[in-house]
Amino acid sequence: MPTKVIIIGAGFGGLRAARTLANNDHVDVLLIDQHNFHCFQPLLYQVATAGLEPEQIAYPVRAIIRRWQNVRFLMARVEGIDRSNRTVQTTCGAFEYDHLIIAAGGRTNFFNLPGVAEHGFGLKTLADAERLRNHILTTFERAAYEDDKQRLKAMRTFVVVGGGPTGVEMAGALYELVRNVLTRDYRDLNMNDVRIILLEATDQILAMLPPQLQRKALKRLEQMGVEVRLNTAVVQASDTTVELKDGTQIPSYTLIWAAGIRGVELANTLEDALVRGGRLKVRSDLRLADDPHVWIIGDLAFIDSGTQPLPQVAPVAIQQGATAARNILAQESGQATTGFTYVDRGTMATIGRHAAVARIFGISLWGYPAWLIWLVVHLMSLIGFRNRVVVLINWAYNYIFYERAVRIITRPAVQPEANVLQSQPGFTRAVEASK
Amino acid sequence: MPTKVIIIGAGFGGLRAARTLANNDHVDVLLIDQHNFHCFQPLLYQVATAGLEPEQIAYPVRAIIRRWQNVRFLMARVEGIDRSNRTVQTTCGAFEYDHLIIAAGGRTNFFNLPGVAEHGFGLKTLADAERLRNHILTTFERAAYEDDKQRLKAMRTFVVVGGGPTGVEMAGALYELVRNVLTRDYRDLNMNDVRIILLEATDQILAMLPPQLQRKALKRLEQMGVEVRLNTAVVQASDTTVELKDGTQIPSYTLIWAAGIRGVELANTLEDALVRGGRLKVRSDLRLADDPHVWIIGDLAFIDSGTQPLPQVAPVAIQQGATAARNILAQESGQATTGFTYVDRGTMATIGRHAAVARIFGISLWGYPAWLIWLVVHLMSLIGFRNRVVVLINWAYNYIFYERAVRIITRPAVQPEANVLQSQPGFTRAVEASK
Repeated sequence: MPTKVIIIGAGFGGLRAARTLANNDHVDVLLIDQHNFHCFQPLLYQVATAGLEPEQIAYPVRAIIRRWQNVRFLMARVEGIDRSNRTVQTTCGAFEYDHLIIAAGGRTNFFNLPGVAEHGFGLKTLADAERLRNHILTTFERAAYEDDKQRLKAMRTFVVVGGGPTGVEMAGALYELVRNVLTRDYRDLNMNDVRIILLEATDQILAMLPPQLQRKALKRLEQMGVEVRLNTAVVQASDTTVELKDGTQIPSYTLIWAAGIRGVELANTLEDALVRGGRLKVRSDLRLADDPHVWIIGDLAFIDSGTQPLPQVAPVAIQQGATAARNILAQESGQATTGFTYVDRGTMATIGRHAAVARIFGISLWGYPAWLIWLVVHLMSLIGFRNRVVVLINWAYNYIFYERAVRIITRPAVQPEANVLQSQPGFTRAVEASK
Repeated sequence: MPTKVIIIGAGFGGLRAARTLANNDHVDVLLIDQHNFHCFQPLLYQVATAGLEPEQIAYPVRAIIRRWQNVRFLMARVEGIDRSNRTVQTTCGAFEYDHLIIAAGGRTNFFNLPGVAEHGFGLKTLADAERLRNHILTTFERAAYEDDKQRLKAMRTFVVVGGGPTGVEMAGALYELVRNVLTRDYRDLNMNDVRIILLEATDQILAMLPPQLQRKALKRLEQMGVEVRLNTAVVQASDTTVELKDGTQIPSYTLIWAAGIRGVELANTLEDALVRGGRLKVRSDLRLADDPHVWIIGDLAFIDSGTQPLPQVAPVAIQQGATAARNILAQESGQATTGFTYVDRGTMATIGRHAAVARIFGISLWGYPAWLIWLVVHLMSLIGFRNRVVVLINWAYNYIFYERAVRIITRPAVQPEANVLQSQPGFTRAVEASK
């Protein structure tokens, strides 16, 4: 009878764990995810800024696991884990396991700041990215017919919170969307009308990079016209305002929240292991301390080693997926498990056209070379030949024509009603004509 | 002072009217649509069957009108037309016109059959297509864990109503999605488990084609395994059943409704001109009989000539858009307007790989040649260089690899809960284990 392994989550970690166990006769794997696709989260910001179609960074799980004969997929939401009976409860029934790998990942951390979860836009899921794209584009459509100067200014002010790669890439991509595309879509619009503000609570952006690269990134953002404010924390938000710790009110209709992630709700069901940020404390071999059948990987895993916690990024999740899977096999065959060691191959962030910063194998790169490497690494990391081709075509098109072809509002965003009074040249408004 | 022309609707007709008036110094144009994109409706069925991304058959209106200096765009919903004051009321305020072109198009006609509008899936908008894709894919995910044989059969029965091009293309594309892709995604699934039923109320499919081509299309569908039932009308539907006129109940979770369209709600505000199917009666020059300032084109227009009404298809709308725009210019300069004459260049429908039927310039084609012509015509009709390239890439990919890469469930479809009891090989269900 093969060992039954359930993997919760088809993200980077869960997929690698499944791949490590694939076509192993001693194991049957059930991979559970609430979505039927794997999402390539590092490119979500390009979906949010109309550079890529959502479906291009998503790949069907069943297409990935086709050749893994011992891996099954279940699209369902996990509702609970019964560790005493070794059972996972889902919206499609309950399933038993011998080993459970929890790779359910993180969600946006709004830090319980008043109004921020309600009015801020996270950027962790495909739905997040599409919602943000719809909102940004709708805001510009509304602004085109807005007459109130104050409201107009707030509509064209975009606040990005968080100086990590997501925040930096989002601010840069948003700048290029407006500068290269929207100023041509709206004849009356020029860059002076638009403010993009990047807020960071600490005194540095891209903290994982050497200070030299941080300075280059900061300089580039400021040259573009992005207002970067360090040591600046948000305390609350409404639909039209972002309030800072020093009391400043920034009138803005768009708060993009890239300030951190926390573990998914499911982690709360394992409360003994729960630590700060909704993560779960594991031994160095990624096993829960008190349960030899449960393994935690990726954004959820917090290795209790006393040192700096590992970053919540894809490479960590991928490497942990392989380690946890191998440790299950080791434990089942009576061998010793091995501790997880993160091999950091580097980190990078792109700011815009020809502009990126990267630290790879200990070498610092910036500008054009870093940008090219960023493109190649991300293209090759995408799953699926078709996705690589269509993303490459989109990038080439965007690069050559200074375009963002996906500026489609698929769902009307919920927006404060525009206060339209302005008369359009050539179109006297009825309300004005009647004066 | 230029003549103010308002065009409602950025579909095929509205865009062609705007293009005809573009860069004419005597005219100012305001183009209004509730969406910020033009949708290429003839390919909606490919979005619904996971062959294309929704955004690939959509193109931003502002990108289309960029070089038309006298054309402005307003994204808003039209709420009313005040003809005595020559004003269009929108969700973004009221606008005055000298001439109004109503090109607001059609919506799915559910013929007030009980339950059909509620449970049937129309295929007229991008949202419709994505919703249907999500539903079809979710149904197969649910079916994979369904134990009740009756429910399982209903989940895998797909009823397509309407033997026009949309119904025929949808049935064929659905067959290929299941046959080429899903039977590989679901190891236990084979084509004998899946029923695709095409219902047509009259005694012929593809009524606009010669009988010879109708027979070829019918034969091909039946060879595939699509059950075609002529002279068969639906009388009502629930979430799990389709009921026919003869009393037959077909258990099915999916009713795809391609049986007809009717004018949009807006047409009801011009009740004097309203005729059957929610269309508006116009003179042969496309003007309302009693209003020299209002012109109707496309799916909404019903030319009161006593002959067979024109089909509600893109070529008619495009040609009418040009005629209405030219007639406005003629009327403004005191010249006579001209009556509309439809130049029918042909019609075609694709059934599947290497299989289509076409009647072009009076010549009948079928099989491979018709299929190739269908591909070329549709590719060239798409707006935007990028869209053509990415659609071509998707088609090539789907053709070579027998794939449909976009089988992504972007939004959980509302579904009857699966009644899951089946034990999965290797995964004893907890409910069974406790027996």
